[in-house]
Amino acid sequence: MMTRHAAIHADAASIGVDDILDAAARIAPFAQATPVLRSASLDELAGCRMFFKCENFQRIGAFKFRGACNAVFALPEEIAARGVATHSSGNHGAALALAATLRGMPAHVVVPTNATKVKRASIIRHGARIIDCAPTLAAREAAVAQVLADTGAQLVHPYADPCVIAGQGTVALELLRQADGLDALIAPVGGGGLLSGCAIATRALSPGTRLWGAEPTDAADAQVSIESNRLIEDVVPDTLCDGLRAHLAPITFEILRSHVDGIALASEEEIVAAMRLLWARLKILVEPSSAVALAALLRARERFAGMRVGVVLTGGNVDLDALPWKV
Amino acid sequence: MMTRHAAIHADAASIGVDDILDAAARIAPFAQATPVLRSASLDELAGCRMFFKCENFQRIGAFKFRGACNAVFALPEEIAARGVATHSSGNHGAALALAATLRGMPAHVVVPTNATKVKRASIIRHGARIIDCAPTLAAREAAVAQVLADTGAQLVHPYADPCVIAGQGTVALELLRQADGLDALIAPVGGGGLLSGCAIATRALSPGTRLWGAEPTDAADAQVSIESNRLIEDVVPDTLCDGLRAHLAPITFEILRSHVDGIALASEEEIVAAMRLLWARLKILVEPSSAVALAALLRARERFAGMRVGVVLTGGNVDLDALPWKV
Repeated sequence: MMTRHAAIHADAASIGVDDILDAAARIAPFAQATPVLRSASLDELAGCRMFFKCENFQRIGAFKFRGACNAVFALPEEIAARGVATHSSGNHGAALALAATLRGMPAHVVVPTNATKVKRASIIRHGARIIDCAPTLAAREAAVAQVLADTGAQLVHPYADPCVIAGQGTVALELLRQADGLDALIAPVGGGGLLSGCAIATRALSPGTRLWGAEPTDAADAQVSIESNRLIEDVVPDTLCDGLRAHLAPITFEILRSHVDGIALASEEEIVAAMRLLWARLKILVEPSSAVALAALLRARERFAGMRVGVVLTGGNVDLDALPWKV
Repeated sequence: MMTRHAAIHADAASIGVDDILDAAARIAPFAQATPVLRSASLDELAGCRMFFKCENFQRIGAFKFRGACNAVFALPEEIAARGVATHSSGNHGAALALAATLRGMPAHVVVPTNATKVKRASIIRHGARIIDCAPTLAAREAAVAQVLADTGAQLVHPYADPCVIAGQGTVALELLRQADGLDALIAPVGGGGLLSGCAIATRALSPGTRLWGAEPTDAADAQVSIESNRLIEDVVPDTLCDGLRAHLAPITFEILRSHVDGIALASEEEIVAAMRLLWARLKILVEPSSAVALAALLRARERFAGMRVGVVLTGGNVDLDALPWKV
């Protein structure tokens, strides 16, 4: 993995807005152009004007389809024939499965045994072969190495991959067109692929827009890394937000430290409260990892007072049998 | 009430598509043009192509705002000054409250003591005065009569009102523009205001489109009334769908028996299953009363096989602390 990280590291500065425009054209036949929703009552509560980019309506129910689709369709034919592989406990696995199915090639997804039932079922439903592994980094890396050796498939990393980052950047590309003149944009940060892509698009197309990441207090590796200007990889995440337990990779750390204004935090209680608010007021399902953006904005509301703020809602794949509140 | 019914009855034939076009223009500054969502996986399940008209994204979270807004803004100034009144256990009360607030006039809403907490709170939040009454027809009518006598307010009936029906018809007006060439349209039927308005719009603008109502088997007064060609008012509804417990009124019965192809039924279990499907696949909150349309379509799927079907999702005001499945 270190060799791959080093190679990718060198690529960080080379991802530009043209790559994101290329990605938009490449995924257009397959991806949804997702709607932007507004809520007068939430605006009143937050003291700013929010434009919610609804990636819960994206295919497979999360923005991850954009990056996976871009990576899959960018592969040269001779490599594509051998298929793709990844490790994922969730949305990236389903996204890669669907993208591969759409291109008519195999996908192999290494899934830890503690993945949620709903996300595991989605990976299978979208056509991937699942390889189970123990829920440790070592077991996961060994399983991926074995799959790559066995199949010759191309690894598509969930976020430390320039094609994936460029694909995720199409979220901001669309949002900036839908909600002209944003003063700020806030998006959840886990491994940092989404925020990195959004940062590259936003800095190029709307340089005055402030860029914020949002992260659970109990998984704040990105915040600590950027504040200390040193990539921290030993934070042990302890959050309900199963999409935000990853650490930044060198490539996303490089991009984020150059471009973001800061990472705003929210507690688990604030995240659950924001999730309920989004459900009740917008009438949409979002998963906890999505709600962190609104939760962090509400906690730091004086920073956004009166602004037009783009808020990225990353996905809606919730286990309806296990909601994070008592029913 | 009979005098009013008789007067309205005489109006049934006089509501035309022009009234719906007028309503659309009147409510345009206030109402949402709601999106239409699609789902490849639900289409596969149903064996047809569905266009979900998402009135859960309408203001106050339900289509009811359209009719109430049209009725309120159609009032002459001298009548408007005295305010409006209605009886409602739910969405119509909140809709009338918001419409009246937007026009700067008072609203009085008679609410049965068994109304859900969420819907009662919404009526208050949108600015109405609540008058409590016992949950019987007699108590409700007495309370409304008292309010009208005390205040001189104008009654805006939840559905037996030509302005309300015309306002609800804007749902079909929009949907027919958004999803060109619908073979069929299916909408829930309670008091019949929505389906009546949609029927008038659809018959005028897309005469080849088949029109279906959807109703809980345990509150099937519309189905029995239309099959027997006689307005049935003594069915005692027993359904989770709190928005569908009303009976047809003479005006809606007249319109529906002239225009609809039939009323399709669904059991309580089928409705809850359809509600879960809509949540899980479309990533939206819909209330049980909305889900009856998909539930009835799935039960009668051979009737819709291969068609392009508009499915009206009427609202999303769900009590998140009391979902109809175990969590």
